[in-house]
Amino acid sequence: MPRAAGHRHRRLVLPLLCLIFQGATALLFAVFVRYNRETDAALWHWGNHSNVDNEFYFRYPSFQDVHAMVFVGFGFLMVFLQRYGFSSVGFTFLVATFTLQWATLVQGFLHSFHGGHIHVGLDSLINADFCAGAVLISFGAVLGKTGPAQLLLMALLETVLFSVNEFILLSLLGVRDAGGSMTIHTFGAYFGLFLSRVLYRSQLEKSKQRQSSVYHSDLFAMTGTIFLWIFWPSFNSAPTALGDGQHRTALNTYYSLTASTLSTFALSALVSGDGRLDMVHIQNAALAGGVVVGTSSEMMLTPFGAVAAGFLAGTVSTLGYKFFTPVLESRFKVQDTCGVHNLHGMPGVLGALLGVVVAWLATHEVYGDGLQTVFPLIAQGQRSATSQAVYQLFGMFVTLVFASVGGSLGGLLLKLPFLDSPPDSQCFEDQIYWEVPGEQEAEAQRPLRAEEPDTQA
Amino acid sequence: MPRAAGHRHRRLVLPLLCLIFQGATALLFAVFVRYNRETDAALWHWGNHSNVDNEFYFRYPSFQDVHAMVFVGFGFLMVFLQRYGFSSVGFTFLVATFTLQWATLVQGFLHSFHGGHIHVGLDSLINADFCAGAVLISFGAVLGKTGPAQLLLMALLETVLFSVNEFILLSLLGVRDAGGSMTIHTFGAYFGLFLSRVLYRSQLEKSKQRQSSVYHSDLFAMTGTIFLWIFWPSFNSAPTALGDGQHRTALNTYYSLTASTLSTFALSALVSGDGRLDMVHIQNAALAGGVVVGTSSEMMLTPFGAVAAGFLAGTVSTLGYKFFTPVLESRFKVQDTCGVHNLHGMPGVLGALLGVVVAWLATHEVYGDGLQTVFPLIAQGQRSATSQAVYQLFGMFVTLVFASVGGSLGGLLLKLPFLDSPPDSQCFEDQIYWEVPGEQEAEAQRPLRAEEPDTQA
Amino acid sequence: MPRAAGHRHRRLVLPLLCLIFQGATALLFAVFVRYNRETDAALWHWGNHSNVDNEFYFRYPSFQDVHAMVFVGFGFLMVFLQRYGFSSVGFTFLVATFTLQWATLVQGFLHSFHGGHIHVGLDSLINADFCAGAVLISFGAVLGKTGPAQLLLMALLETVLFSVNEFILLSLLGVRDAGGSMTIHTFGAYFGLFLSRVLYRSQLEKSKQRQSSVYHSDLFAMTGTIFLWIFWPSFNSAPTALGDGQHRTALNTYYSLTASTLSTFALSALVSGDGRLDMVHIQNAALAGGVVVGTSSEMMLTPFGAVAAGFLAGTVSTLGYKFFTPVLESRFKVQDTCGVHNLHGMPGVLGALLGVVVAWLATHEVYGDGLQTVFPLIAQGQRSATSQAVYQLFGMFVTLVFASVGGSLGGLLLKLPFLDSPPDSQCFEDQIYWEVPGEQEAEAQRPLRAEEPDTQA
Repeated sequence: MPRAAGHRHRRLVLPLLCLIFQGATALLFAVFVRYNRETDAALWHWGNHSNVDNEFYFRYPSFQDVHAMVFVGFGFLMVFLQRYGFSSVGFTFLVATFTLQWATLVQGFLHSFHGGHIHVGLDSLINADFCAGAVLISFGAVLGKTGPAQLLLMALLETVLFSVNEFILLSLLGVRDAGGSMTIHTFGAYFGLFLSRVLYRSQLEKSKQRQSSVYHSDLFAMTGTIFLWIFWPSFNSAPTALGDGQHRTALNTYYSLTASTLSTFALSALVSGDGRLDMVHIQNAALAGGVVVGTSSEMMLTPFGAVAAGFLAGTVSTLGYKFFTPVLESRFKVQDTCGVHNLHGMPGVLGALLGVVVAWLATHEVYGDGLQTVFPLIAQGQRSATSQAVYQLFGMFVTLVFASVGGSLGGLLLKLPFLDSPPDSQCFEDQIYWEVPGEQEAEAQRPLRAEEPDTQA
Repeated sequence: MPRAAGHRHRRLVLPLLCLIFQGATALLFAVFVRYNRETDAALWHWGNHSNVDNEFYFRYPSFQDVHAMVFVGFGFLMVFLQRYGFSSVGFTFLVATFTLQWATLVQGFLHSFHGGHIHVGLDSLINADFCAGAVLISFGAVLGKTGPAQLLLMALLETVLFSVNEFILLSLLGVRDAGGSMTIHTFGAYFGLFLSRVLYRSQLEKSKQRQSSVYHSDLFAMTGTIFLWIFWPSFNSAPTALGDGQHRTALNTYYSLTASTLSTFALSALVSGDGRLDMVHIQNAALAGGVVVGTSSEMMLTPFGAVAAGFLAGTVSTLGYKFFTPVLESRFKVQDTCGVHNLHGMPGVLGALLGVVVAWLATHEVYGDGLQTVFPLIAQGQRSATSQAVYQLFGMFVTLVFASVGGSLGGLLLKLPFLDSPPDSQCFEDQIYWEVPGEQEAEAQRPLRAEEPDTQA
Repeated sequence: MPRAAGHRHRRLVLPLLCLIFQGATALLFAVFVRYNRETDAALWHWGNHSNVDNEFYFRYPSFQDVHAMVFVGFGFLMVFLQRYGFSSVGFTFLVATFTLQWATLVQGFLHSFHGGHIHVGLDSLINADFCAGAVLISFGAVLGKTGPAQLLLMALLETVLFSVNEFILLSLLGVRDAGGSMTIHTFGAYFGLFLSRVLYRSQLEKSKQRQSSVYHSDLFAMTGTIFLWIFWPSFNSAPTALGDGQHRTALNTYYSLTASTLSTFALSALVSGDGRLDMVHIQNAALAGGVVVGTSSEMMLTPFGAVAAGFLAGTVSTLGYKFFTPVLESRFKVQDTCGVHNLHGMPGVLGALLGVVVAWLATHEVYGDGLQTVFPLIAQGQRSATSQAVYQLFGMFVTLVFASVGGSLGGLLLKLPFLDSPPDSQCFEDQIYWEVPGEQEAEAQRPLRAEEPDTQA
């Protein structure tokens, strides 16, 4: 009976939310959203051969990499659970997609609203994808314990807070954070962790047997890892200044990732009982090098700085998975399904602090003319390097406040009863949200697997 | 005995076809195909810094995305069947590859034949990939019911008809169809559906148990979906005008896809008995937004127009899977394995009609100087917007005629007895075309494979 | 007891190697590695709109494709083994990552060392990825029979020899080999094969049952194949001259791959007993077209030349898998797990010879001004075409010497006892290096998993 009621609920809640949200964003698109200069047939002046006009072409490949990271990378990284693959990749698809539309509007009002209209172009798409990245990081914390309707509401709230926090940091405080160590990773991780804290389930061991992976689900997850790893240089460099800015950012990120991968392998073997590697570490901690240089990779971090930062991040992240995640659940009542605290939380904070240090070390001598693009306020004499460093630090605290208060509010919001949260015993299970193949006709399926049907006859 | 005969046949038919086709195209390449100006060492004048010379670099990333969509996207989208993964991805590989060579020749004769030679460059590769896309759409309709030799013959015929139809529309009628709502999706879908009609199998339920998916095959298929989804902006924009044209096309496609995804999730939950989502809908209908703006995404569709179109396409496509596909088989005797009618057929026709409307609304005011690149015949005063709209509509009918007549002819061609069509009871089964691992030593393999352990108890 | 000792060993060897190697490279990075002009904020002069300044943007998309090929392509291509997926993709990740750092240093000392520093930029990343490609080819020969510590030592040695060989060929001998038929494929293959010869295991049939694939592992491997296939045009063109050079290289590679795919399908069906296709051939031999034009695709090979070369390579490669690989093991005692001799060895040598012929045919008439970028020494009158051809041939022999001597030395190095090589009965098995899911709680997992065969005995 309650199950039937649940079904009736679910049957209406998810479609209604999708339709209402889509209807609302479509309406807002109709009223407010217009092509910007570069996408409007009447306003564009192509052909004067300047690099400014070529900017679309210089940024488009990075955009496509970011787009691939969000949907392929994050989506498949979460497929590691044995019976939650449909939900991991499917809800990623749903939630990220809604976020793209909603972030276009929210960020558009904050950044490109003039003449009564939001003007969209490639930058809107890149920024919306970044926001979707943050939402998916939060999803990682609550993976398996929240239904799609809850996730849509989470995205609705988080997109607003993400965009406001980002606006405060980048536009009001003049903080530099191109690759989003603060605005994306720290924000997304702590938003998700606080949300998970509010939604704490004391009886989650009821579905414990589904919390582990199986062989092929780990391989799918590794697909996600590799995609994130190869495209992360584009992620961090997508919004940086053209020329040396993007080039240097990609280079720093590349080397940081190599170091976090090596330290992850070293630490994973070292902390295990018998020297064997743990796939969870490899899938996740190896990526911490991308997170930790999110703020500083556009700066003159130096290749050695990138390697050192990546090494530290991989180490901290692997140790976090091994020693801190269990404490987080037992002592702090935070259940972190994907370990986003280890991959995004701690490396994000480390990345913010690294940005503080590197900004503090900035000089006219080291940056030359490039100071104008990396630290415009220092170049224009409005700030000293020390002052910029203080602002960077302050930006991190603002982010932590937004994330923690926002995540807590989000948790309360997601407790609304009509949102149809999965019962403790049905967490990490696709069947309550998806028609899983072979379910009804398990008997009929048997002969089709591994062996020849004719041999039965 | 007939099985042995079949083997002997197969052993010769497929290799002979491959060798004959490859020999013929190689000969034609030798006689006719030459580098074009931009790929010839002696003719290229690099370094005068004009955007015209940079065109290769502006288009190459889009080309790679299209190439990835054709081979990764279409290939893996069809892996959903439980025992047909090798064939889905393998025959995609074979057929698309042959099409690339053959389309280079056919399209070269139509488009870039002068001085007795076909001149090839990046455009040839993009256009050949588009043609391969259409052939793979048709393959989706007959997936599991046709052997590789049949598919090669299908590609031989379809490539010619695709290229002629495209030439008539784009070059003779002045129809605009950059992303191919008509030339690729409508053509490919109805060609495949008519072909499937001719090849109708009344006894197909004999292999019904293999027509469903299994858990991991659905995850592989979802890989295909996500790749198609993320790269579709490049697909539609690959052949459009540089500058605002490509930028706007990518933007419209991106937003249309977000809307079709949201409507697909809404409708999938709504039409199911118990509110659960159907993976088939998510894998396919979510992509309908890319199809529906194929014609109009280069036009001044507006972001709202893109969202509205995508929403409609996702809705129609999902409803098609739920309600129309069974009717298509029972009443019209069309067996559509992948539901290409829902993903490419109906959204393609909708996209053609949307192009009619948006062309009809075109004004000098809205397009400004851009009118020359989007609607050159209107800009040059040779046509009114209304007249262009009528041509667009006419183009759709021409496409439907080419597809239906061509598909029917193709069906007759594929009935040639020596082509070794799979028997009804062996459809959707890899083993008749592939050495499937573990087959010979089923006994040794069994303990390692996926079979149900309960049978041991 | 020995098993426990093995564990204790392993627990220390791999982490220690990772930490020592990372510590050493980090130190060398600190002392020697600096940003080059294009990545340094103070040295870059962006905005004068010349194509030289845009070079980063013209090469970045190709770089990302190469990066994807190395990690996704090679990584997943080796996942075909039923119980070695974690190791295939994980050790690829580890070894390639270490190689990227180490190659930056070694190649930097050889190519961009001035003023006491190595200057790194995008070229460094591309060249390091190429070196990682060669190391992964060698890995393919010894896949399943070597532990991660052994592989790290192999990469340490091979990177040095690869870079020295490449330096001799390209910089000292003036050999042309953009896509690396010699420097990458021939070198990587024969290095791995000689190494495998030294490590010959006469008792390898003890783990024979794990040397085969299972259904889904073959699909994962096919993902790797398709990624390699679609991005190979970028691989060969990544280091060639801007403009017509890159354009022509991509075009030639594309057509060569189509032909090798068709000949692979033809031959695979032809040589099998019953006309059925062998997934091993499709996964590998279809790619031989990319290898065979590695040297000549930047030259005026002609589209027909590309098709003919690809056809030949696919044929030779497929025949190699069918007839030569068994002989290689039985007569020459070379156990070649992935058949790299067929995919990289023979096609690499063929590609080198093709380069000899095409260089020999070079004329001022055919190349025009482009002769300066393709054959600068001929253009400057320092060499005749015949002389260039002789140098090309000599380059191949140099490569074979470096590979065979280096691989043999490598084999001796890898026999060092503390490197913890897997026992004959545990080859091709993830469990000795990885915590494989469900292992500890086999009872609870059984219904979902593939269980251990030994428990049946």
